[in-house]
This record gives sequence, structure tokens and C-alpha cells, in this order.
Amino acid sequence: MNIYDVSRRAGVSIATVSRVLNGNPNVSEKTRTKVHAVMEELGYTPNVFARGLGLGTMKTIGIMCSDSSDPYLANAIYYLERQLRIHGYDSILCCTGPFLDNKRTYFELLLSKRVDAIILAGSKFVELIDRDNDYLIEAAKELPIMLVNGYLDAPGIYSTVCNDYEAMYDVARHLIDSGRKDILYLYTSHSYSGLNKVEGYKNALSDHHIPVRRELIHQCAKDVASSRKLMEQLADSGLTFDAVMTSDDSLAVGAVKFAHIRGISVPDELAIVGYNNSILSYCTNPEISSVDTKVEELCTTTVNTLMSVFGGGNAPAKTTIAADFIQKQTTNF
Amino acid sequence: MNIYDVSRRAGVSIATVSRVLNGNPNVSEKTRTKVHAVMEELGYTPNVFARGLGLGTMKTIGIMCSDSSDPYLANAIYYLERQLRIHGYDSILCCTGPFLDNKRTYFELLLSKRVDAIILAGSKFVELIDRDNDYLIEAAKELPIMLVNGYLDAPGIYSTVCNDYEAMYDVARHLIDSGRKDILYLYTSHSYSGLNKVEGYKNALSDHHIPVRRELIHQCAKDVASSRKLMEQLADSGLTFDAVMTSDDSLAVGAVKFAHIRGISVPDELAIVGYNNSILSYCTNPEISSVDTKVEELCTTTVNTLMSVFGGGNAPAKTTIAADFIQKQTTNF
Repeated sequence: MNIYDVSRRAGVSIATVSRVLNGNPNVSEKTRTKVHAVMEELGYTPNVFARGLGLGTMKTIGIMCSDSSDPYLANAIYYLERQLRIHGYDSILCCTGPFLDNKRTYFELLLSKRVDAIILAGSKFVELIDRDNDYLIEAAKELPIMLVNGYLDAPGIYSTVCNDYEAMYDVARHLIDSGRKDILYLYTSHSYSGLNKVEGYKNALSDHHIPVRRELIHQCAKDVASSRKLMEQLADSGLTFDAVMTSDDSLAVGAVKFAHIRGISVPDELAIVGYNNSILSYCTNPEISSVDTKVEELCTTTVNTLMSVFGGGNAPAKTTIAADFIQKQTTNF
Repeated sequence: MNIYDVSRRAGVSIATVSRVLNGNPNVSEKTRTKVHAVMEELGYTPNVFARGLGLGTMKTIGIMCSDSSDPYLANAIYYLERQLRIHGYDSILCCTGPFLDNKRTYFELLLSKRVDAIILAGSKFVELIDRDNDYLIEAAKELPIMLVNGYLDAPGIYSTVCNDYEAMYDVARHLIDSGRKDILYLYTSHSYSGLNKVEGYKNALSDHHIPVRRELIHQCAKDVASSRKLMEQLADSGLTFDAVMTSDDSLAVGAVKFAHIRGISVPDELAIVGYNNSILSYCTNPEISSVDTKVEELCTTTVNTLMSVFGGGNAPAKTTIAADFIQKQTTNF
């Protein structure tokens, strides 16, 4: 239910409903009474309409992210806020944490604020089980839902994604071409983006007639110490590897620490590849070769697409942006 | 001018003005007419009142930060949003950049949205020239202004600060006690916090009868490469130093890189101390001893103080939180 329902039921324009809601005296008493009656009938409290001037918009966008202290998401929020501001929109921020229940609660909260659109920053908002995404698909009938690096095929949902599959495929291909055979793959999450990344890795191996070995693929908490410890355990268990690909720079930092502790030379004995090309990849010694996932371009494109939607233009349901591999000191291909 | 002015002039309660503004039919026609007349007289457009239920509040707080992609500020925003949410408040985020003109523009914008309070995250919002802060002091007569790690002595402004002076004093004292004599000091900004830090360094030296040498104190851009290059230049110019204190972890990361490139052993030949104990300090090898500036506690306290202000309680104008020194691998005292 929204301002459109009231307008339709009362048989008046949205602008008129808005005038009544804003207490604008420039409405006939008859119309005011009718609108109030419809609001009562539909069970509205007037405050949920509390909006800005004119056509019932506060020019406010809800931004949801799982954790704004994550370096990638912190950058995303910075770029989204900046770009929305350029277009005169405020950003209401919601840091949801990782759990679906909280995501849904925050989402409902933003809907109740009557924001003009909701941007979901980061790939963690698309769940693997289809029905867990129904609340997004349902809401997209009412207002635009923008996914930054996530994808859902439904009307009113617009995705801007980085080509993670291709990026990881290319990294693996380069490693194989330069003679690496046992490529460890460490990842943090089974998100839309996470699944694309591991597929890129697997397909590059298969296409080069290298068997995909389950014991080389491991999930790991997103921190430096966890990936270091995991690699120590794997090495101690007798597993050998001459390269490690990671789904996030923080895991690659752990790999550099592992190599240092075990006296393994990087990249000669062990090539290391990070992901996101964050500031972390510049802190280590050697600095970590990493995939620049173009977060600024993703965010700018997301906002520009949203402005097309608002303008009634022909907005693409999915825009794909190519990543860049940034060769630094932990690879030599 | 605000809802209180309308209430006073019309001789009705704030709740009544709010009911009129929200289009609530439960107001006599006489009162409605009077309130509308006063609004017209005072030159109001009703939309600036567009607020939530009841007493004219949208339960929305404006958060300003200079750059949400900075790791310290990204954490601050995460903790502020989370804590405000617990109390049922939305956060409107504004990333202002470093320039005063933009800070003032965003500030005015938040005021025009009729937020319930404005939180300024990070010490960069208190300018060194007194009159440049007049807009904050003026606004604080209308709504609470909360400073996270900044301080201004004015009614309606509430500060929660980390004891940067004491933290830096203690670091310098420990370095001196463990035999360091030529302590380089690298800093990024002349903010309230920045000035306190360098004072702590200087006073610790003076109190230990070590001359404060201008050639050991240098400003530097807030990135890894800049501090590394600066230290190389200083070493090449013949300056000797056996310790380096920094105002931010990113500078300390550059110091670790400098030591690595020059074959200087850390901490034996060069002790390195970071600041903020961010994830960056855990990425390097050796890991960087750093000052934990308690950003979560600062943010939680800021929000709790704000809730006291809203509740009419006795809120402290300034709360000081002690930092913790986290000994890692780049110091040995």
C-alpha cells in the first residue's frame, strides 16, 4: 500500500493526496475529507507518508550493507553516498550484519520510511535459496531495488556486477600458463559473487586439463590470522601447492604471513593473488597482486541506472563491468 | 525557526502543530486555520516539517564524516549507525570531503532536513580558526551537535574524545625509557586530535630532558607510499633516528616498508609505533605496535550521551576515554 493506492481509491491525483498529507491549505474541504476517509479505510497512519515537497518523495535512498567497516563495503558506501548526493538524494544507511532475518527487518524498516529506492551494497544480499529472495522480488513491484555486485532476475531489480567469473578464470589461466600446477583456492562466502569466482577457477583448470581437486578448495573466515593458520594446517597435513588464489585480500595477507613463517619464497615457490585490490594488498611485503573489482565504477553505474529508472528511461536490468588484474610482487606471469 | 516557533506564535501545543502538519483530522477547524495562518506569516513551506508521528521528530540523525572509506571513520560509521538503530533512530550519512565550504554546505543541508541531531565523526570538523566553527556553535542552539573525537566548548555541543595526548605521551615515554633517543614523529593533520598527539610527544621529550628537534617532526600524506618515501629522503639527508611514532597506522606501514628496503632491523635498530590499531597494523611483517583509540567505545558513548540529551538528562559536555597501547612486533619496551 502506498500513496498511489490512496490516490486511486479517493479518485484524486497523487499531488492532491500529497497536499492533504502536508497540511497544505490549498485543498478543498470536500477533497480533504474524502482523502482522510480513504486513509482511515485503508488503515493508514498519516506519518508513514511524511515526505518532502510536492509529489510525495523525500529524495532519500536506503543503502543496506552487511558491514560498513569492511574495506570493500566502506568504499562502496562512500561512492554511493557521493554519487547520490550529486543527484540531490540523501542516503539512509543500514548496516544489517550477515543474517537474513535482520536483513529482512531492516528492509521492511526502509520500506516503512517510504524511501525512493533501496540499494543493496555487496553480494551478500542475494540468498542461495530462491524463496529467501521473495521479499526483494515482491518489494521491487513498489520501488526500484538496486543490487551492487549481486544479481536477481526480476522486474524492478537492477544489477551492476563485476565480472568475477572472468577475472578469476583469467588469474587461474595465467598461473597455469606460467607453470603453476597445484593452485590452492581460499574463499570466504557462498554469495553470488563467491560462486562466480570459484566457477572461474574451476573452469580455467578444466579447460587446461588440470583436475579440479576438492582438497585444494577451502572456505575460511575473512581475516588475516584464519587464512595463515589454515595454510599452516594444510601444509602440515602434507598438501603441496605452488600458488594460492583468494576471494579477498585479507586472505592473501594471511598467505604472505604463512610464506614468511615457513621460509617459502614468494612468488618463486608460492604465487599469491588477492581480490579487491584494497589498501591491504599494498601493506604487505611483498605487495600482493590483486584483482581491481572497480567498486567506484560499480557504484557510479548503480546510481546512474537508478536515475534512469526515476526518469522513466530505458534502464538495463544488468550491467557488467570488467575487473582489472593489478600485477604487483606476489606473481610473476 | 522551527515547530516551537509556530507553536508559540499560534498559542497551541507542539503536538497540535504536529497533528495539523500530519493532516490528522482530529484538530478543530479553528485551530487548523490558526496554525496555517501562523505558518504563512512565518513564511513556512509545510514540507520542511515533514516528520514522523507525534511530536515532530523523524527520529533521524545526520552523520557527517570527511571520508567513510578511511578505515577509522568506516568503523566509526558502522558503530554509530548500529547504536542509533538500537535506539530506533535512522542515520543520514554525509561524506563531506576535507574542505570547510563543503562541510558547511552539508551541515546546512542536514539542518534543512530537520534531523534531530548531527554527529560529526572524526576530529577534522573542529577548525583551528575560531570563527570557522561559528556555524556549529550557532546551530547547537537549535539541536544537539555531537563531536566524535573533537572538542568545542559551547552550549549544545557534546564531545566524546580519546585521550590522544596521554596516549602519545606514554608511547614516547616508553620509547625513551627503553633507550630510544632520536624519535621521528610523522603526522597527517593539524586537527584537534592531531595537535593533542604531537603535544604528547613533545612534552614527553621535554619532561625527560630531551630537546624537541624540529627536523624530527614531519607532516605527511595519509598513505603508505608517502611515509616510506619521506623516510627515505630523511635518511638520505643524513638524519638519524632509532624510533618513529606516527599519527596513523598507514604511516607506520610505510615505516615498515622503509626499514625492509634499507635492511634496517625492526625493532632492534628502529622501533615503529602506529595509531588506531586498525587492520593495517596486522597486515605487515612484523605486525605494528599501535594505539587502540577505542572507536567503538567512543561511538557508543556518543550515542548514549545523545539519548541523555533527548531525555532531558544531565549529559556531560565532554567525555574522555583512555586509549590502550597494543604491543605487537615493532617495539620492545
